[in-house]
Amino acid sequence: MTLQHDIKEKRNNRGILLISCPDRPGIVSKVSTTLFNHDCNIIDSNQHSTDPEAGHFFLRIEFECSDLEHKKSSIEKSFQLLSEIFDMKYSFNYGNESQSLAIFVSKENHCLLELLLEWQRGDLLGDIKLVIGNHEDLKEYVENVNIPFYYLPITRETKEEVEKKQLELLKEYEIDTIVLARYMQILSPSFIEHYPCQIINIHHSFLPAFVGANPYKRAYERGVKLIGATAHYVTDDLDEGPIIEQDIERVKHHHELSDLKKIGSQVERKVLLKAVKWHNSHRIIPFGNKTIVFD
Amino acid sequence: MTLQHDIKEKRNNRGILLISCPDRPGIVSKVSTTLFNHDCNIIDSNQHSTDPEAGHFFLRIEFECSDLEHKKSSIEKSFQLLSEIFDMKYSFNYGNESQSLAIFVSKENHCLLELLLEWQRGDLLGDIKLVIGNHEDLKEYVENVNIPFYYLPITRETKEEVEKKQLELLKEYEIDTIVLARYMQILSPSFIEHYPCQIINIHHSFLPAFVGANPYKRAYERGVKLIGATAHYVTDDLDEGPIIEQDIERVKHHHELSDLKKIGSQVERKVLLKAVKWHNSHRIIPFGNKTIVFD
Amino acid sequence: MTLQHDIKEKRNNRGILLISCPDRPGIVSKVSTTLFNHDCNIIDSNQHSTDPEAGHFFLRIEFECSDLEHKKSSIEKSFQLLSEIFDMKYSFNYGNESQSLAIFVSKENHCLLELLLEWQRGDLLGDIKLVIGNHEDLKEYVENVNIPFYYLPITRETKEEVEKKQLELLKEYEIDTIVLARYMQILSPSFIEHYPCQIINIHHSFLPAFVGANPYKRAYERGVKLIGATAHYVTDDLDEGPIIEQDIERVKHHHELSDLKKIGSQVERKVLLKAVKWHNSHRIIPFGNKTIVFD
Amino acid sequence: MTLQHDIKEKRNNRGILLISCPDRPGIVSKVSTTLFNHDCNIIDSNQHSTDPEAGHFFLRIEFECSDLEHKKSSIEKSFQLLSEIFDMKYSFNYGNESQSLAIFVSKENHCLLELLLEWQRGDLLGDIKLVIGNHEDLKEYVENVNIPFYYLPITRETKEEVEKKQLELLKEYEIDTIVLARYMQILSPSFIEHYPCQIINIHHSFLPAFVGANPYKRAYERGVKLIGATAHYVTDDLDEGPIIEQDIERVKHHHELSDLKKIGSQVERKVLLKAVKWHNSHRIIPFGNKTIVFD
Repeated sequence: MTLQHDIKEKRNNRGILLISCPDRPGIVSKVSTTLFNHDCNIIDSNQHSTDPEAGHFFLRIEFECSDLEHKKSSIEKSFQLLSEIFDMKYSFNYGNESQSLAIFVSKENHCLLELLLEWQRGDLLGDIKLVIGNHEDLKEYVENVNIPFYYLPITRETKEEVEKKQLELLKEYEIDTIVLARYMQILSPSFIEHYPCQIINIHHSFLPAFVGANPYKRAYERGVKLIGATAHYVTDDLDEGPIIEQDIERVKHHHELSDLKKIGSQVERKVLLKAVKWHNSHRIIPFGNKTIVFD
Repeated sequence: MTLQHDIKEKRNNRGILLISCPDRPGIVSKVSTTLFNHDCNIIDSNQHSTDPEAGHFFLRIEFECSDLEHKKSSIEKSFQLLSEIFDMKYSFNYGNESQSLAIFVSKENHCLLELLLEWQRGDLLGDIKLVIGNHEDLKEYVENVNIPFYYLPITRETKEEVEKKQLELLKEYEIDTIVLARYMQILSPSFIEHYPCQIINIHHSFLPAFVGANPYKRAYERGVKLIGATAHYVTDDLDEGPIIEQDIERVKHHHELSDLKKIGSQVERKVLLKAVKWHNSHRIIPFGNKTIVFD
Repeated sequence: MTLQHDIKEKRNNRGILLISCPDRPGIVSKVSTTLFNHDCNIIDSNQHSTDPEAGHFFLRIEFECSDLEHKKSSIEKSFQLLSEIFDMKYSFNYGNESQSLAIFVSKENHCLLELLLEWQRGDLLGDIKLVIGNHEDLKEYVENVNIPFYYLPITRETKEEVEKKQLELLKEYEIDTIVLARYMQILSPSFIEHYPCQIINIHHSFLPAFVGANPYKRAYERGVKLIGATAHYVTDDLDEGPIIEQDIERVKHHHELSDLKKIGSQVERKVLLKAVKWHNSHRIIPFGNKTIVFD
Repeated sequence: MTLQHDIKEKRNNRGILLISCPDRPGIVSKVSTTLFNHDCNIIDSNQHSTDPEAGHFFLRIEFECSDLEHKKSSIEKSFQLLSEIFDMKYSFNYGNESQSLAIFVSKENHCLLELLLEWQRGDLLGDIKLVIGNHEDLKEYVENVNIPFYYLPITRETKEEVEKKQLELLKEYEIDTIVLARYMQILSPSFIEHYPCQIINIHHSFLPAFVGANPYKRAYERGVKLIGATAHYVTDDLDEGPIIEQDIERVKHHHELSDLKKIGSQVERKVLLKAVKWHNSHRIIPFGNKTIVFD
């Protein structure tokens, strides 16, 4: 993809710094002065504190620095020191390093196709390195665009073994982030802990919720006027992890149950795409069970 | 309100017919032929069937008929006959008769103020005849625009008696429709049965739902990105009646709990207004636990 | 696509009738009685009149009729008679006949990819028979999914000849509808007259409009907060044909000019898709320079 | 309004600093260090640069500082010095000082009523000190809520004199910001220059624009599917000042011309409200002909 290449070229001297720490006076001052001392010019910064007293502090800084490649290590060393003083979690992300993505799929294609579409346009802000499916249905879509597809079927008996194989593949391809594009398997806690806040899931939901089986049918029977979708980071608590993005589509009385599912798939692919792009451009800081999104 | 008056003038020869019955072939043919035979010209019609076989049929027809005032009774007589053949529920609504509304309130003012705003503009498509509050807080807003306000406080002991008083007032003012504008009392089944699908309620909700106490707090703690509101007809099953309209507003990480409540109030007043206007212009046919909205 | 096949199966007995004529009393009555006499059961109908006196009448009826295949010709014959009485334009569309689409492209891929995505899912409600490009850039995307791609470059000198070749291809493939998916050539009036209200175009626009060159740049310089897109039928009057659908996406101050173009492409593909689906399901009646959309 | 009072109490130690200057390295560092040296704790900050090289820098900082009342002057003195070094425009805004608003009206009431509604709820984040009308129609709405209404009719001959009178009133009431709530008079350049980027206007618009007379009629005739509204700061160039906020509402074919105007008024009042609230909470930095909105 030459577009991807162009973006990288342009962003060679760009860095993004994410910080999360207990709030106290002087953090912005120290952080910005440290960057200034390394000739970094701040392009865009966003900061948020949950509560001025005893709260938590979040910062995203996008900066530019000529010859960043060679200054990286000294900048990072300075922040190592700072982080100890302020009890900071921080990460540096460089414009010339794009996120390496794995996509997990089952049989439904809409989320996968949306991600492939944007990836083909060079707009995903990340590289899809491989797709893993527990069904073979979507193989052709993936191989058509020259991305490797791994078919790893799962049964109750083989689940542990398959997850091990999945982890090996993720390691081999140096994956940063896993996107569950309607992957209909529950990942085990031991799998998830390898990728904390690096696994993105998508599911639909309704206003109000229809808890239990057949939510589409029951939503249809009550004549809901909206279908929503929620993208979130995966935690042990199924579908209860930190929310990244949500949106809705309108429904009308003439829509049949099958139409609702199609409308649901439209809003799922839209919301998942937004979440993946924000994640890839380091606009999200997870904190407890919520996210700070500097969009 | 002179605007109300103008609209009535203009609509003197307009009628709206709503029909709901088991589906079978020939209904549209018979209905439209009957209207034609009475010199009614169909302006706008919408029809929907849930299922061609053994389903249910819904029809809304807006028609024009010169000298409608005098032809009314013979038109209605014809439909009396038709309704027996097709096992129809039907209603005729005339452009020169606007809905008489009662608003029930407690302490929160946003929904009341929105309804008063549109009513003052002549855009509510209905007349607010009285406001009943179980608190006195909103009295001034109502009396300022010369609508009677009745303060009827409620305790567990007096509830039955107060509902009786409310029903008397509703009868006295010849009320068609009750709007619960953040009225924080649960109406008894015996009250509700006097106004089937004529009581409209509004409540906020989230994606996914946070069932139980303090939904705003828990939604805040999970960092939801949307706040929704649902307007519905009141049935015995609290907040579970047929949905009329839903919508959402976006929320950001910098919004505090108090901001969420304010955003919630914005979406509540917007959704309630839409529901009341659709109801007043006879665009809704309730059916079982859902609504057909011909908007 | 087996999905396409399933939908056809299910819709074998479905028909959609579109009518447009000068308004006068009795049309619905005559039309519905005629359908009833041919054992057609009306599933869904929408009617609209621009003005009860001297206005225009529009009707969309979706009906079901067992053994429709054999009754078609007699139904159509009856409407031939009716159309003469009422000066009607009408069309019958059958559920087992899906629209045959040609897509015209240049270099930009976002609209093409969106259409291919939905087509692959069996959700486009139409079949893409061929793609014609005046550039070769998008060939691979098209051939990857086994649709023929015709590369027909255009110069001022060859334009007439190329349009002739295009028309031949459209005839050969029995095309009903042409979708201009960011096709950057202006079609000649003589081309357009072969496909009245059968060519769909998409373009972005702003609030307020920035007429003239470089609209994105000028919108950016004034800090617009929205980017819109308009899908319309193509007429001789460039970009001024009847509007089918419009929507917008939000823009923020941190979006650069290149971001605006990307956001513009997102809203373009979304709006074009909706327009094409409505067209394919016969939900649009063009009238003068506007459209009636029974969505 | 006691709510206004509560908010003020709570915000006694809150300050908002807005900065705009040519970009160069070190600004954030200097600004945040200066605040830190005065014991100010940054709660929320947003920064944006138009272009890292030779671009412009914008910063909004919300901070907390105990005993702010007494430290104000020394903080401001420090920024006086800083501003000279960096060629800064800056302003300090304190949580206990709310914007004083004047509203200008003519005959249409929807924008006025929306502002009064939110003001009555204590949610406008500003105080409406007076309303000036060139017609008397809206007087009662204003006096009902105990705000002074000045009726100042305007003719071509008296315009200069009336504007002088208006300016006197604005001075007398110590007005910060003027909201043109469908005020149908054009303000003279000499009036406007007293309130640069302190006058907010609202107007509807369409996609695409219908330049010239009767835009609603022409939009109706082309069957637009959206009505938009734009809130902007008033400059000499009529309706061409920096855009603050824009939004749209959907329109359907059954909406008549009068419906379009009503829908237009809904979106106007919604957009104007948002713009006024952002302005009142110092979330907007105008720059050239655009605005940076830190929402």
